[in-house]
Amino acid sequence: MAVYTEVSDDALRAFLGEYPLGDLIAYRGIAEGVENSNYALKTTAGDFILTLYEKRVDPADLPYFLGLMEHLAARGVTCPRPVAARDGTALRLLAGRHAAITTFLPGVWPRTVRVAHCAAVGTALAALHLAGADYPGARANALGPAGWSPLLTRALADGGAAAEGLAPGLAEELTAALARILAAWPDGLPRGQIHADLFPDNVFFLGGSLSGLIDFYFAATDLYAYDLAVCLNAWCFEPDVSLNVTKARALLGAYAAGRPLSAAELAALPVLAQGAAIRFALTRLYDWAHTPPGALVTRKDPRDYVRRLRFHLAATDAAAYGL
Amino acid sequence: MAVYTEVSDDALRAFLGEYPLGDLIAYRGIAEGVENSNYALKTTAGDFILTLYEKRVDPADLPYFLGLMEHLAARGVTCPRPVAARDGTALRLLAGRHAAITTFLPGVWPRTVRVAHCAAVGTALAALHLAGADYPGARANALGPAGWSPLLTRALADGGAAAEGLAPGLAEELTAALARILAAWPDGLPRGQIHADLFPDNVFFLGGSLSGLIDFYFAATDLYAYDLAVCLNAWCFEPDVSLNVTKARALLGAYAAGRPLSAAELAALPVLAQGAAIRFALTRLYDWAHTPPGALVTRKDPRDYVRRLRFHLAATDAAAYGL
Repeated sequence: MAVYTEVSDDALRAFLGEYPLGDLIAYRGIAEGVENSNYALKTTAGDFILTLYEKRVDPADLPYFLGLMEHLAARGVTCPRPVAARDGTALRLLAGRHAAITTFLPGVWPRTVRVAHCAAVGTALAALHLAGADYPGARANALGPAGWSPLLTRALADGGAAAEGLAPGLAEELTAALARILAAWPDGLPRGQIHADLFPDNVFFLGGSLSGLIDFYFAATDLYAYDLAVCLNAWCFEPDVSLNVTKARALLGAYAAGRPLSAAELAALPVLAQGAAIRFALTRLYDWAHTPPGALVTRKDPRDYVRRLRFHLAATDAAAYGL
Repeated sequence: MAVYTEVSDDALRAFLGEYPLGDLIAYRGIAEGVENSNYALKTTAGDFILTLYEKRVDPADLPYFLGLMEHLAARGVTCPRPVAARDGTALRLLAGRHAAITTFLPGVWPRTVRVAHCAAVGTALAALHLAGADYPGARANALGPAGWSPLLTRALADGGAAAEGLAPGLAEELTAALARILAAWPDGLPRGQIHADLFPDNVFFLGGSLSGLIDFYFAATDLYAYDLAVCLNAWCFEPDVSLNVTKARALLGAYAAGRPLSAAELAALPVLAQGAAIRFALTRLYDWAHTPPGALVTRKDPRDYVRRLRFHLAATDAAAYGL
């Protein structure tokens, strides 16, 4: 649902003229991604994605994001690779926005998650973490633990009306859970570059194999095992919000086969999963409270993540996830 | 802004298996078109568009639309051509929706309209009308003159509050204009299959030439010269809603070179242009009145078409358009 910026024909032609990509064949807005304007671009050189960065992305973060994609792609991670213009720069300006062209990745994101998808994501996430280990950039995780208290305050800025409308007592429940999570948040776990938003719609599969990881615009420098906990939330729950232990075991096992988990990481899995669940519950609650009910956009129900949070709060150790 | 229906992987695979299109390579929602769900589909056989028809399209009209595209494409009109499945049918079912695959057209729609675009559209519209002359289907124009009074009633169902909020006196102005237009509406002009919505975002250009006409889902059997009047409104006004006579002359002249306009059609041009202007003013007013102000969708301002309407109401003959 994401075409916010229209580009004039002349501006597009001039912009593409800076790249060694041949002639323009087609240019269509694509409906995926909610932060930026994305276009499917076809030229005589092939298929590409043109992204115009909208106001929710801090321009100061763009070199980190594009540099990370370039770094990972060069190390065999199947992610979009920024295409450099003739002058060697990939981050440019178009229609008053920062803009970049990246390679097009084949594949289809899975609308129905199967166990094999979870295993493939675990393998790919470990490979991403290992490939990013020598990336020289760093970015504080704005939506990591330090950001959750201010986010809760903003999500409850309506006096908690939206939260109460969803579930009586929800504001109080989230406030108590967040205090407990932050008090138990682990120190000293291995950290590096994480994707931080590796949901099914950011992972492409082709002929049964993982063919691409996209949307690195939440990537940050944070705990590796927190990234895994995000995936646990995003991939291993059934539509009725019950944990599928077979999927959890497939995800965690495949990850650990690529990057072994330390005892401290395993012990921290419940609180990391609580943190990941509350992070998405809070951003969804914020969006819920700030989107008019009649709006023609799909609001994601925060309660799906509140239910995950409750599951993780009841977990005492990694055995809850099949380990 | 148009992905309303998600299709499961298995359903998509089974659906594509019915077509002689090879293997799936990619499948991305595209953000253009507001009535249906559209996907850019890439297979080993090439690029295609998959459309799922949503509730604003009457399924009974689909054979007319798809048949017309097939008919026109077979006669050299560069429009999407329905792709038949192995059993010979192009209109099928997917995810509980009627669905069709059509060919992908290269090109980019013009964000800035130039005189050369107007001439090319005039030529293409005449060719479309001529190519459709022997099409055996017919469809009453739901958004033609017979539909405007009920549409006005629904657009003013809020007691005219939305209209008055836009411009004091607007409800009264539209009511009076509509009565005048319907009283003067011409009888006996040449009729046949018309596109009825040939706005710039439905016309692709490539390397300076018109490369495709898309979105036939408002097509109907109605006056040819009314279709031309829609284009006059859509292509020949500047952003300040002044008529560019050079563009109007280019559009009308190129059209007439392909399909000569009769004296009666020329004489009716002002009232046809009034009708086209009020048709878009009314649907935009209806959408304006029925979209919450905070919604994250762009509402098109009906006043752009009210201003066109005023221009056409002041026109006494085709000389107003440079003829």
